[in-house]
Amino acid sequence: MKTLTAPRSSVSDCVARVATGISDFFDEKEALALPYGRRYPELWAAARRSSEGGKRIRPALVIHAYKALGGTRDDDVVTVATAFELLHTAFVLHDDVIDGDTVRRGQPNLVGAFSAHASGRGATATSAATWGEASAIVAGDLLIYSAQAHIARLDIPGSTRVALLDLLEECMFVTAAGELADVAFSTAVEPPVLSEVLSMTQWKTAHYSFQDPLRAGAILAGAGDTTLTALGDYGRHIGIAFQLRDDLLGVFGSERLTGKSVTSDLREGKITPLMCYALQCDDTGELRDILAREDVTEPDARRARRILTSSGARDFIEGLIDDYTRRAMAAIDSPLVPESLRMQLETVARKAGERSA
Amino acid sequence: MKTLTAPRSSVSDCVARVATGISDFFDEKEALALPYGRRYPELWAAARRSSEGGKRIRPALVIHAYKALGGTRDDDVVTVATAFELLHTAFVLHDDVIDGDTVRRGQPNLVGAFSAHASGRGATATSAATWGEASAIVAGDLLIYSAQAHIARLDIPGSTRVALLDLLEECMFVTAAGELADVAFSTAVEPPVLSEVLSMTQWKTAHYSFQDPLRAGAILAGAGDTTLTALGDYGRHIGIAFQLRDDLLGVFGSERLTGKSVTSDLREGKITPLMCYALQCDDTGELRDILAREDVTEPDARRARRILTSSGARDFIEGLIDDYTRRAMAAIDSPLVPESLRMQLETVARKAGERSA
Repeated sequence: MKTLTAPRSSVSDCVARVATGISDFFDEKEALALPYGRRYPELWAAARRSSEGGKRIRPALVIHAYKALGGTRDDDVVTVATAFELLHTAFVLHDDVIDGDTVRRGQPNLVGAFSAHASGRGATATSAATWGEASAIVAGDLLIYSAQAHIARLDIPGSTRVALLDLLEECMFVTAAGELADVAFSTAVEPPVLSEVLSMTQWKTAHYSFQDPLRAGAILAGAGDTTLTALGDYGRHIGIAFQLRDDLLGVFGSERLTGKSVTSDLREGKITPLMCYALQCDDTGELRDILAREDVTEPDARRARRILTSSGARDFIEGLIDDYTRRAMAAIDSPLVPESLRMQLETVARKAGERSA
Repeated sequence: MKTLTAPRSSVSDCVARVATGISDFFDEKEALALPYGRRYPELWAAARRSSEGGKRIRPALVIHAYKALGGTRDDDVVTVATAFELLHTAFVLHDDVIDGDTVRRGQPNLVGAFSAHASGRGATATSAATWGEASAIVAGDLLIYSAQAHIARLDIPGSTRVALLDLLEECMFVTAAGELADVAFSTAVEPPVLSEVLSMTQWKTAHYSFQDPLRAGAILAGAGDTTLTALGDYGRHIGIAFQLRDDLLGVFGSERLTGKSVTSDLREGKITPLMCYALQCDDTGELRDILAREDVTEPDARRARRILTSSGARDFIEGLIDDYTRRAMAAIDSPLVPESLRMQLETVARKAGERSA
């Protein structure tokens, strides 16, 4: 049986096309990099690896919002979704440099791989570290650039392109504020105050991971301001819940399931809302001491977990997750949010509240 | 006497408007940053300071090319020129992080100022360094983003905007390759080979500082491919000459005139074409030893200068500067390059060849 028009593709088809789009993007860049020194194609290959293995949450949110709100131009939504995934990879690359991390998901990250390679070629420890960090800084720069380029080159009506550029500019601006606040707390440049640490969580994670992908899909589909506000509110609340769950898993989770060390947040002295709450009741200064250590042992981590539990911090954060999840659901309880999208976002919300990895 | 149309403004008026444009840009961002934590407005204020004090060579080249080739829309050319200056500031910020520099033009740079501030608030040396470097990484990210945003938002015909986006993408891509190659040589990840070190100079400096500003001005003015090629060739050659002069001044210059330490290139083990040539004749390994040191004393620097002179490296580089300057001039010896622009570019070329600061 023949059809005269191509059948409209499903959300999962579009998500798959994002994977292809990202792969094509890196293919092109790796080929273009060949005339520019031996290391440049390797950098692009490593940047590609940094973009792989994630859950592709952000592209899926862009596409869900777009499709549910009536969007039909698959090429455009795949391009916007790809932009968010590249931006995410860029943020991860620079975040790892700033945190001094050399491992992600149990494997050497770009810094770790490039440093090890330099050491293998006889570089000093200092030079090897410089090479690893410089490479990750440059790779992140290129992906920040490329994310915006995807939006800037969209062949869509000028007003929609400007609205998307406005959104992405706000996304970049707020995420950078969150990154800076995060470092300010963990380096003790700023004293941790719970309300401010919660704001940092929203700026650093919720905005670019939930609010903005949903709003971008909606803008591209031509949705009105009320719908944008509802999706933004949902994204803000669910994004905070998602990050709070991440913070709990970073200390109490199963390393086997999360692929993330359950001592690294402690070792880096990360001030999450979980830590911030516990520090406020930490009369003995024991938790503060553990967070200040360069090397955190398994016994240290066990003591920290005990303090986080006995102080009530763990229960407090579980309560916050429930609360933010409820507020997220309330935000999309509107006839302007199509039933199919609401059901999808409920599933996301449930996962954010309950996931173990 | 009245005129019905506003008089066409001069090149210097437009260069002055770039300064205003940059100032307005930072005013807006600093105001927007106020709700995002105490440190974020300070970051924007520091990014503004990083953008000040330069010679504004790149904006001037954009504007000279545009005006000489008949462009009349001042707002557009000021926007494009501003984009190049913001990109330059971003590259300087990230370059300083990668090189471990805390001083620029005799003053603490963003890394140095933020680290010192953290130390003053009681942060450990490690935390203070992390804070300084993280702040400069984030500031550079924001300016890379903002540079492209200036181009992406231009209200000009689609084909011109796409041509400018293509140019800026190539600019970013090649400069990143140059930065990576530079670090590869100085960390000994790549053995220095003169032809490759010269290529690195072109990628890292000539492209974004000379080739691309000139070509951007020309594209915006609607110039044809032959003109673009002529200006690109001029820019490539004069950009290399400019950087070779910079390399000489970095070792033999007057610190009072350049504002740049004459031991820092040596201390950082920078592999410039000057060093590379001398290393190839360095049978005793004396220069190699000096470049490998973490701390370079004034007697070390004197010995290095002696080796660079006696090996013929200094004369060789002076010869290359003459040669590249001649090739630059030959490239614009074409009726397609207006007389006024050629005269201006001759002045630039003379300065690149002869300057002492």
